[in-house]
Amino acid sequence: MTKVYNFSAGPAVLPAPVIEQVQAELPSYHGSGMSILEMSHRSSLYEDLAAAAEEDLRQLMAIPDDYDVLFLQGGGTLQFTMAPLNLARHYHRLGLVDSGHWADRAKEEADLLPGIQADVVASSKGDHYTSLPKDYHLNGNYDYIHLTLNNTIEGTMYRQLPQLPGQVLVGDMSSNILAQRYDVKDFGMIYAGAQKNIGPAGLTVVIVKHDLLDEQQNLPAMLDYVKQAKKHSALNTPPVFAIYVAGLVFKWVKEQGGVDALQKRNEDKAGLLYDYLDNSKLFRATAKPADRSITNVPFVTGDENLDQVFVQDATAAGLLNVKGHRSVGGMRASLYNAMPKAGVEALVKFMKQFEMEH
Amino acid sequence: MTKVYNFSAGPAVLPAPVIEQVQAELPSYHGSGMSILEMSHRSSLYEDLAAAAEEDLRQLMAIPDDYDVLFLQGGGTLQFTMAPLNLARHYHRLGLVDSGHWADRAKEEADLLPGIQADVVASSKGDHYTSLPKDYHLNGNYDYIHLTLNNTIEGTMYRQLPQLPGQVLVGDMSSNILAQRYDVKDFGMIYAGAQKNIGPAGLTVVIVKHDLLDEQQNLPAMLDYVKQAKKHSALNTPPVFAIYVAGLVFKWVKEQGGVDALQKRNEDKAGLLYDYLDNSKLFRATAKPADRSITNVPFVTGDENLDQVFVQDATAAGLLNVKGHRSVGGMRASLYNAMPKAGVEALVKFMKQFEMEH
Repeated sequence: MTKVYNFSAGPAVLPAPVIEQVQAELPSYHGSGMSILEMSHRSSLYEDLAAAAEEDLRQLMAIPDDYDVLFLQGGGTLQFTMAPLNLARHYHRLGLVDSGHWADRAKEEADLLPGIQADVVASSKGDHYTSLPKDYHLNGNYDYIHLTLNNTIEGTMYRQLPQLPGQVLVGDMSSNILAQRYDVKDFGMIYAGAQKNIGPAGLTVVIVKHDLLDEQQNLPAMLDYVKQAKKHSALNTPPVFAIYVAGLVFKWVKEQGGVDALQKRNEDKAGLLYDYLDNSKLFRATAKPADRSITNVPFVTGDENLDQVFVQDATAAGLLNVKGHRSVGGMRASLYNAMPKAGVEALVKFMKQFEMEH
Repeated sequence: MTKVYNFSAGPAVLPAPVIEQVQAELPSYHGSGMSILEMSHRSSLYEDLAAAAEEDLRQLMAIPDDYDVLFLQGGGTLQFTMAPLNLARHYHRLGLVDSGHWADRAKEEADLLPGIQADVVASSKGDHYTSLPKDYHLNGNYDYIHLTLNNTIEGTMYRQLPQLPGQVLVGDMSSNILAQRYDVKDFGMIYAGAQKNIGPAGLTVVIVKHDLLDEQQNLPAMLDYVKQAKKHSALNTPPVFAIYVAGLVFKWVKEQGGVDALQKRNEDKAGLLYDYLDNSKLFRATAKPADRSITNVPFVTGDENLDQVFVQDATAAGLLNVKGHRSVGGMRASLYNAMPKAGVEALVKFMKQFEMEH
């Protein structure tokens, strides 16, 4: 087997020691004689691992006690529906910061809910989403303002949050949770699909300030944060295996020194690639320097045919999944927590070689 | 490691060869150098495995081409919401057959949807759910009638469907899909959580007759069968790993001879246990003979303290998860497809010994 590096935007590379541990204990979890794949969600073995996963995530992100931590299903896309249903209950109105494709999807889904108004309060569409929106037009009362903290496709990311005094922030942290430090207290709610920095696909983490919820709301159970919180995310059968792997990843993150250490490492890795891109005569990064993501780096040659050749040649060289999102084309290297520096070095080396040859 | 048998109602025992294969190929799926846990849902490797899983399920259940097969998340509980949203669109009314706990949960969730009326059209509550409802009171027009084909907690199961001419049937097949033969053409829709006979928790299979759906309905994407079908269940990141394991289980079911062969085996296994229970002076099965499930066998001693001793002693003997559901107490042995006959034999042997001693 040739050594490969997986630059996929998600599902994405996981820490090698986590995959080794999953493999080693797959036939018998903690000497139970049962695989984790066969484990009842009402067993103490499961309850212990779910509680440990929550506790480790709380430590890693310094999540205050008055926030619920939920392990749900359905990805970020279901949160585009659940967040308005659960949180847009006073003014029935939310403000959306239009920073790219996934922010737009959040608006599309909110618009489908009867009685909910979703206003774009800031947009960088005019800038082709190569930067983050800067001008806010707030007009009246919003239950919350929705921010996409890292724009996986466009490669922009919030280092600092916009100053929006008095507003509740809801953050889609799908592609940089645990990769960039944020202060949970700045948010009313955070959500993230697991399949980038947390674990396999099929798990969605929701962190929500409990007092924003209405205990009486009585939504359909699977769409109701209150009901899910009351049952510790085991209202019905949770995705046991995905939560188990997430728990192993949380322990790995702790062993690496936590979020701050990984952020530093991510900045170094991204810096390597951006430095090369900014000095290359063939390639260029598409996002503006001030707003660049440290986890997703889109780049182009400016020639679509050459982009295609590059993707093919990189794949052949074991540098996998560097094709850009179908909506924007070009290339993208996703450098999540589990991507080793050696992977970025191999990519840059390959790009230099490619540049010499073209 | 002592040999154990896992009688959990779900997540439940999986075929040993499937777990062995998952373990063997975990570090590198099909020589890709990437774990299946890291596999992009836009890769051809994933698309191929998802297509094969669908095709194998279609073969196993003889699913006609005019039915969509969807691989979703959220379990049966989310289907209690999605089925009415998608299907109760003409009369805004469904009939629910109240055969036990999960049927009741289906009604509770339907009742939460504004504008939807959910009528109980038959009930065996008066019989403490030890049999299936027999008397139907249909009154007007229903978009569909909801049946729980196997009542996991109460241990009753439909061998034949009730005769309800002109009605669309929606079947919750969570605990006996692929374990008992049904004719898909008798249903407008079937759904099943994977975590009993299909694979790990975190996957829900939906089989729906396409012409029952309204192409224009425009529900929130994750709740919309039409949108999910158009995107082949990859509208957002699907639960890749759970679909992969489900695909391996489908291949295993085919190797065993398909649904009819497994049904026969399940009848034999359940027969062993029921025969003993019907002749025991200590234990008795709680479900009435005519409606007994072949996958879930609840039983009691009639003495709650002794039940507790039995559960403890059985656990110590490696016969795991025989405790009944918390809502009914007693014991329950779940005998899904992957439970070998040797497991049932070991359980009966242990029960005989226990009976002699108590």
